[in-house]
Amino acid sequence: GSDFSPRGKSDGEIMRFCQAFMTELYRHIGPNVDVPAGDIGVGSREIGFLFGQYKRISDAFENGVITGKGLSYGGSLIRPEATGYGAVYYTCEVFKHQNDNIEGKTFAISGFGNVAWGVCKKIAELGGIPVTISGPDGYVYDKDGIITKEKIDYLLEMRASGRDRCQDYADKFGVPFFENQKPWGVKVDVAMPCATQNEIGLQEAKQIIANGTKYYIEVANMPTTEDALDLFMDTEGIIVAPSKAVNAGGVCVSGLEMSQNSQRLSWTAEEVDEKLHNAMIAIHKNSVKAAEKYGLGYNLVAGANIAGFEKVAEAMMEQGIY
Amino acid sequence: GSDFSPRGKSDGEIMRFCQAFMTELYRHIGPNVDVPAGDIGVGSREIGFLFGQYKRISDAFENGVITGKGLSYGGSLIRPEATGYGAVYYTCEVFKHQNDNIEGKTFAISGFGNVAWGVCKKIAELGGIPVTISGPDGYVYDKDGIITKEKIDYLLEMRASGRDRCQDYADKFGVPFFENQKPWGVKVDVAMPCATQNEIGLQEAKQIIANGTKYYIEVANMPTTEDALDLFMDTEGIIVAPSKAVNAGGVCVSGLEMSQNSQRLSWTAEEVDEKLHNAMIAIHKNSVKAAEKYGLGYNLVAGANIAGFEKVAEAMMEQGIY
Amino acid sequence: GSDFSPRGKSDGEIMRFCQAFMTELYRHIGPNVDVPAGDIGVGSREIGFLFGQYKRISDAFENGVITGKGLSYGGSLIRPEATGYGAVYYTCEVFKHQNDNIEGKTFAISGFGNVAWGVCKKIAELGGIPVTISGPDGYVYDKDGIITKEKIDYLLEMRASGRDRCQDYADKFGVPFFENQKPWGVKVDVAMPCATQNEIGLQEAKQIIANGTKYYIEVANMPTTEDALDLFMDTEGIIVAPSKAVNAGGVCVSGLEMSQNSQRLSWTAEEVDEKLHNAMIAIHKNSVKAAEKYGLGYNLVAGANIAGFEKVAEAMMEQGIY
Amino acid sequence: GSDFSPRGKSDGEIMRFCQAFMTELYRHIGPNVDVPAGDIGVGSREIGFLFGQYKRISDAFENGVITGKGLSYGGSLIRPEATGYGAVYYTCEVFKHQNDNIEGKTFAISGFGNVAWGVCKKIAELGGIPVTISGPDGYVYDKDGIITKEKIDYLLEMRASGRDRCQDYADKFGVPFFENQKPWGVKVDVAMPCATQNEIGLQEAKQIIANGTKYYIEVANMPTTEDALDLFMDTEGIIVAPSKAVNAGGVCVSGLEMSQNSQRLSWTAEEVDEKLHNAMIAIHKNSVKAAEKYGLGYNLVAGANIAGFEKVAEAMMEQGIY
Amino acid sequence: GSDFSPRGKSDGEIMRFCQAFMTELYRHIGPNVDVPAGDIGVGSREIGFLFGQYKRISDAFENGVITGKGLSYGGSLIRPEATGYGAVYYTCEVFKHQNDNIEGKTFAISGFGNVAWGVCKKIAELGGIPVTISGPDGYVYDKDGIITKEKIDYLLEMRASGRDRCQDYADKFGVPFFENQKPWGVKVDVAMPCATQNEIGLQEAKQIIANGTKYYIEVANMPTTEDALDLFMDTEGIIVAPSKAVNAGGVCVSGLEMSQNSQRLSWTAEEVDEKLHNAMIAIHKNSVKAAEKYGLGYNLVAGANIAGFEKVAEAMMEQGIY
Amino acid sequence: GSDFSPRGKSDGEIMRFCQAFMTELYRHIGPNVDVPAGDIGVGSREIGFLFGQYKRISDAFENGVITGKGLSYGGSLIRPEATGYGAVYYTCEVFKHQNDNIEGKTFAISGFGNVAWGVCKKIAELGGIPVTISGPDGYVYDKDGIITKEKIDYLLEMRASGRDRCQDYADKFGVPFFENQKPWGVKVDVAMPCATQNEIGLQEAKQIIANGTKYYIEVANMPTTEDALDLFMDTEGIIVAPSKAVNAGGVCVSGLEMSQNSQRLSWTAEEVDEKLHNAMIAIHKNSVKAAEKYGLGYNLVAGANIAGFEKVAEAMMEQGIY
Repeated sequence: GSDFSPRGKSDGEIMRFCQAFMTELYRHIGPNVDVPAGDIGVGSREIGFLFGQYKRISDAFENGVITGKGLSYGGSLIRPEATGYGAVYYTCEVFKHQNDNIEGKTFAISGFGNVAWGVCKKIAELGGIPVTISGPDGYVYDKDGIITKEKIDYLLEMRASGRDRCQDYADKFGVPFFENQKPWGVKVDVAMPCATQNEIGLQEAKQIIANGTKYYIEVANMPTTEDALDLFMDTEGIIVAPSKAVNAGGVCVSGLEMSQNSQRLSWTAEEVDEKLHNAMIAIHKNSVKAAEKYGLGYNLVAGANIAGFEKVAEAMMEQGIY
Repeated sequence: GSDFSPRGKSDGEIMRFCQAFMTELYRHIGPNVDVPAGDIGVGSREIGFLFGQYKRISDAFENGVITGKGLSYGGSLIRPEATGYGAVYYTCEVFKHQNDNIEGKTFAISGFGNVAWGVCKKIAELGGIPVTISGPDGYVYDKDGIITKEKIDYLLEMRASGRDRCQDYADKFGVPFFENQKPWGVKVDVAMPCATQNEIGLQEAKQIIANGTKYYIEVANMPTTEDALDLFMDTEGIIVAPSKAVNAGGVCVSGLEMSQNSQRLSWTAEEVDEKLHNAMIAIHKNSVKAAEKYGLGYNLVAGANIAGFEKVAEAMMEQGIY
Repeated sequence: GSDFSPRGKSDGEIMRFCQAFMTELYRHIGPNVDVPAGDIGVGSREIGFLFGQYKRISDAFENGVITGKGLSYGGSLIRPEATGYGAVYYTCEVFKHQNDNIEGKTFAISGFGNVAWGVCKKIAELGGIPVTISGPDGYVYDKDGIITKEKIDYLLEMRASGRDRCQDYADKFGVPFFENQKPWGVKVDVAMPCATQNEIGLQEAKQIIANGTKYYIEVANMPTTEDALDLFMDTEGIIVAPSKAVNAGGVCVSGLEMSQNSQRLSWTAEEVDEKLHNAMIAIHKNSVKAAEKYGLGYNLVAGANIAGFEKVAEAMMEQGIY
Repeated sequence: GSDFSPRGKSDGEIMRFCQAFMTELYRHIGPNVDVPAGDIGVGSREIGFLFGQYKRISDAFENGVITGKGLSYGGSLIRPEATGYGAVYYTCEVFKHQNDNIEGKTFAISGFGNVAWGVCKKIAELGGIPVTISGPDGYVYDKDGIITKEKIDYLLEMRASGRDRCQDYADKFGVPFFENQKPWGVKVDVAMPCATQNEIGLQEAKQIIANGTKYYIEVANMPTTEDALDLFMDTEGIIVAPSKAVNAGGVCVSGLEMSQNSQRLSWTAEEVDEKLHNAMIAIHKNSVKAAEKYGLGYNLVAGANIAGFEKVAEAMMEQGIY
Repeated sequence: GSDFSPRGKSDGEIMRFCQAFMTELYRHIGPNVDVPAGDIGVGSREIGFLFGQYKRISDAFENGVITGKGLSYGGSLIRPEATGYGAVYYTCEVFKHQNDNIEGKTFAISGFGNVAWGVCKKIAELGGIPVTISGPDGYVYDKDGIITKEKIDYLLEMRASGRDRCQDYADKFGVPFFENQKPWGVKVDVAMPCATQNEIGLQEAKQIIANGTKYYIEVANMPTTEDALDLFMDTEGIIVAPSKAVNAGGVCVSGLEMSQNSQRLSWTAEEVDEKLHNAMIAIHKNSVKAAEKYGLGYNLVAGANIAGFEKVAEAMMEQGIY
Repeated sequence: GSDFSPRGKSDGEIMRFCQAFMTELYRHIGPNVDVPAGDIGVGSREIGFLFGQYKRISDAFENGVITGKGLSYGGSLIRPEATGYGAVYYTCEVFKHQNDNIEGKTFAISGFGNVAWGVCKKIAELGGIPVTISGPDGYVYDKDGIITKEKIDYLLEMRASGRDRCQDYADKFGVPFFENQKPWGVKVDVAMPCATQNEIGLQEAKQIIANGTKYYIEVANMPTTEDALDLFMDTEGIIVAPSKAVNAGGVCVSGLEMSQNSQRLSWTAEEVDEKLHNAMIAIHKNSVKAAEKYGLGYNLVAGANIAGFEKVAEAMMEQGIY
């Protein structure tokens, strides 16, 4: 890592920083060694500069060394949508397990960034109705659903503007905006925190439960505080899906990006989407099996932890220790 | 190679030996260099320890460097079944060539290990009837066929017990056991030695011929002594398939394991099985063509030798000599 | 490059030259670095010798390091046909764009080598009628079309003979031969120069235009002189397709050969052909879009230049500069 | 680094730990990269195990990768004596600068380990008189000096015994032992703390000054607390030499070990000793020049800091920044 | 090479250019591969930046990869003086061969840069008398000789000023300055062109010969035009020494710099100087022997060519051809 | 190794074989890995071809990778004389131990090749008198000693002629030749077998003992059969020196060649000779000490074995085991 802050830096400064950083990093990574990916503050612009320097020094087009690449040098289709799509696919598996389905279900969603965008897009495609998005300025309630192409595309536009406000959506589409509030007071079938770590504390949890929400699906990285999560787990009638499993779609498509790089091929969006879908089905299934194996019923939180631990532990034991 | 005997060694000793061995071997192998695979005495446990040390030293997850891996770190589905399945696929090609088919055919099989298990499983699936298995203690005759899931799974259990006796099968399923005898006296359509090198001598060959067996399919590595093979080849009315071609399924799926590793993907069992099937069809076809090209008729032994030699010779000549 | 002339050299001398050349070249190439391919004077024999030496020195079977390989060590099916097939696929896209199709169309083709052979084979397969081929000695006019397997195969035979005359075709199939003339006087729907650089000068261009030819499809590398190309572009009613796009099929299948090498698989001819077809469709489509984006209408020459430039420029900018 | 404690571990455990440690470390070091050396807890036994594993994995006899090696695989003569000898050479330069010399000078020395041993040996050789050594149990006062071979060799024996007591010396040679006291009350010309960090606090400093000691020579790593050092610096008539410069002999001979490894030669003890001597002369001279350049007079503490900083800063600036 | 002009560039721009250049160059050089050195426009500043980037990318302190380094990171003493000193040593060998010596000999020298400075310094040290230097503005005649430390040091000062005028010397030391003239009209024993290529044309040669100069010693790279050289060679009574041999001292000390880097040692100025001296003696001796072997007498021009050619040819033949 | 016989091969064939051999070998050797040297059938011609190919493939001038090189690319002076000189230096140490010296001592020498030449040259230089040489055709007895430059140089000439006869010496210098006899019947002070393995059997040993020879110095590799060696060891009054120690000079100067390569320097003949001399003194001394340590007296055979074993065992133990 580094303590460089890109705030207020020119494109040239960003580029030179990325190049200097990679000049040291390049010897520690590789398509078969460690494969960094973008994250907060490291978007496609930075990935491009980083990969360019890696290529320059290594004198090789080993584009599997990094993921989140632009399409012109080995990126994957569906990479931006991956986390959102994956979360919805996982949710559908939960529905299926409960003999339920997504048709007409309402969703409260926090955030309006990349993840929320992907979530809305896929929910809409499959017949669900996302009714909220939120930002640092408050939340929007769109009872007709964020389901038209125009609305969904507008999320991208809002994000690109850099203004970091979701009131713009309310203004544009004439729907109510609730300043400085979170969307969890809205009565929905599914609550999907998609914004940030710890956004759901005890208070929000109580609200969600009080609303009679049936599905609590974590999408952001660990969006629930420990006490809130305990409350959810102790409450009957609400199913909890942990972010660890739900948001695996991003990492999954990073892996598929690497597969395409290895094959020197680019898959169509449909191929990537299908593989992502299958991966999310498998993740849900493995969690279910793991929880059942230890007599824990349909406990997705425990199941994800157990399945993850067993996989790593088995691989370690099989490969020997020092 | 090494002269280390794993007999009586603890898991820790086995692990340390594998690690020490790989510490020297690692510099001579690689996914594009030489790719070792398990064999007698080197099962999945050893492969895991070997690969773990390779990964540790090379600091890279180059799992195509070795085959026969566990599923948790890059192994292939259908790898255990590969040799047996491949042998049956090849046999079906022989039937097809003779305008014959597997439906209702009886098979005498020696051995009860991994290969025999795969053979029985696939024969049963395709409608044939394996009626014998054998061990160092004698052979079992099961006239109803080793065709139920229970019976086939029991072969694995017998092998895992480490007792190395096949009488257990007779005891469990109430079928006759013939102590200290080989199964070649049983009248069947197809004789399939699946146990060890040189298990078919002149005496066994005469017995098989006398039984009117129509197909002699070598599955174990070179199970037939030279004089016995001469006798088979000189006898009309019996078709001989050489182990060199018949048991190629194991190596074939090792190659498919490498392909999956290269692609950073895991194929489904169905995909692997289909590719294995196609490979066996091609092997049979190339042998047939090679024998015909030299006017030798439907001689699978000669065909396999010729096709193999031509392939290697052509590749060598094309790539130049010193 | 090198100034070695293979004329009059023995096989052994060719081999030793190729080995010496690769002994210096090998350190500058690699499957992820630079990947040479055959060209004029470097056929499959030379590729074999070059790859053999690379393998010997690198001690690795990295066959993605070079393309145009023989099938025994990693070459691709459809590689010989690739340029010709690709050119015809591209032409069909042009037809489609014009609401036209290949059925019954007549083609004047120059050359009778590898490219012309592939072009004829695919045209015939799709229902078109190639009516000429040419050589240094003149051209052949076969009004019934070079469409039977016998005729098409004979092109290979003529080429392999090393006599470099196309009169042989006329003699064999009893069709007219025009000594020392080029085929552009023949009235056809499509003119396809497939022989050499600059074979179409101002005079030939005028002839082609005068004939009412509707499609001028460059297949050879830059077969049109600058003034002739200007004339074509300024003439209404004739569509010009540039070699840069039309003959991309060769490079495309080189890429597919590398993909197969990376996957450690060999695709069937059908799989390669389909991928080639899709690639040519995409090339045409991108050219069309690029020309339209800049308001240039259906200008395939401009479109190919723009699309190519934009792709490279975008990749460069995204990956940063020094 | 690692948190492994060698206390109570068997030789085999120590060896396996060293091997496992090097299996990870080896990729980060090299004769031209980073060169680790022994330190507290990493003696010649550990260095041997570490180097053996490095050699095994790297398949190369690159013994310049580590220093403090045994003589059988590339260690240097005078390495054990280096810190002690270097300290005395430096002290002699101080004498020379003051128009003084070592003949007959008395030295109070703390510690009785490797460093104290080397110091005593060289002082004795050059005509000085070390009169104390100390341990955790107290100090020994030997007014005749630790100057005979028998006495000096006995220091090694005491250290090797593992008893960590210096009373043994008093018992053996019939000289006074002062339990639980430090040697700084003894009136000597030169005080040389050779034991541990911060062994000289304000109290000891006052004692040393009160004794009229003329030379305070730090040998252990930073043996003086900050307030004690301030007191020394503010006191006239006592010359202070900083450990940073005085104990550089160890690192210096590590460098000479690397030179011998690079040359594939072993120098005689005399050659190493002479080079060490010259290096210590240069270190003293550079400190003197650096202090003078900034008008600080004969201030060895400031001089060492300035000379070190300037050297590093100059090398960095000359080689450019990111 | 590159077409970057450092004129008018800032230090930062120079640095970034050097770093970008090395980012591409580094893979083609190495202490055992190719070893670049400074030249016109690449002084110690640039060498520092280049080496810094090499070190950064290679993650290794391989300072033998480049020569002309600063002393802080592996440069050699006597490197700046090397060409000048070497030229004088060679000249002394010529004297010795003629039973002559340097004592009291007068030298006309052109240029006042690094080479001329080294030449003057060594001539003065050995008892000769350099009486001229020159610049683009004319030449200085100092009949007392440029032999005091003050005068010799002033040459460096003049050069560092960047004014590129040698009149300053005349002004400072009160000696005659001849504007826009070259120094070859001065009657001296030895003429030593030390400035640039082709500075001695036919006219200058005639002048030198007319003056009765006995030794014509080329120091700059090929300072004599072809016709002028022919004239010298055809004239009796004047001995000609070719630059190829005379100015080898620079390359020679580059080699010694590499030796010191390999040994991880820095030699004293005396050690380097002695090795340089011996090398120049050997160069002269080998030229003499080579000319004599072919019956050409004391012809240093032919001798240098022959000796150089034979050395390269022998090494090539011994190491085999392709 | 290889089974290629150079008999009757042309220079070109030898060269191509060497190049092909190195193309495989190069990856297993290196200046720090394994360093091959010439031996029977691999002289300087072959070493040159081998090194040339290594350099070509590795793209690096790593001449320490092989020893016995020509002087033009890194060979060492005194390399041809090394074994012979070393043997005589060792012998002189034996004399010194016995309070004896070489002055006027007579030596019987077998062989007339490289080793015998070096032995004669050094003996003559130090004042001893070699009186025999031998070949496959018999032996020469030159009672005046092979001590003049003319005689010694003639040995090289005889060897270079390829006639493999030593009668030529007798003819040329008018001394007696004894056809088909070995030289051991001649009464001398020192017997030095310098020809081949097992040339001294029981019969020769008895003859040597009967002559009252005081020193039996093996120079060839293991020239004494086991029973003969037993006889020597059991006989009082004759000192036996084993080839293992005596002929170490060749390997020693190979090591010095590597040191020079590492330093990028060439030492003078005097420097190499002195280092060789010191090494032989040390070898003798270590053998003496090792034998004494185990109470075996002046037993050079046991001493060499013990010293060698201890050195290897110590290095192995210190560097850890698996």
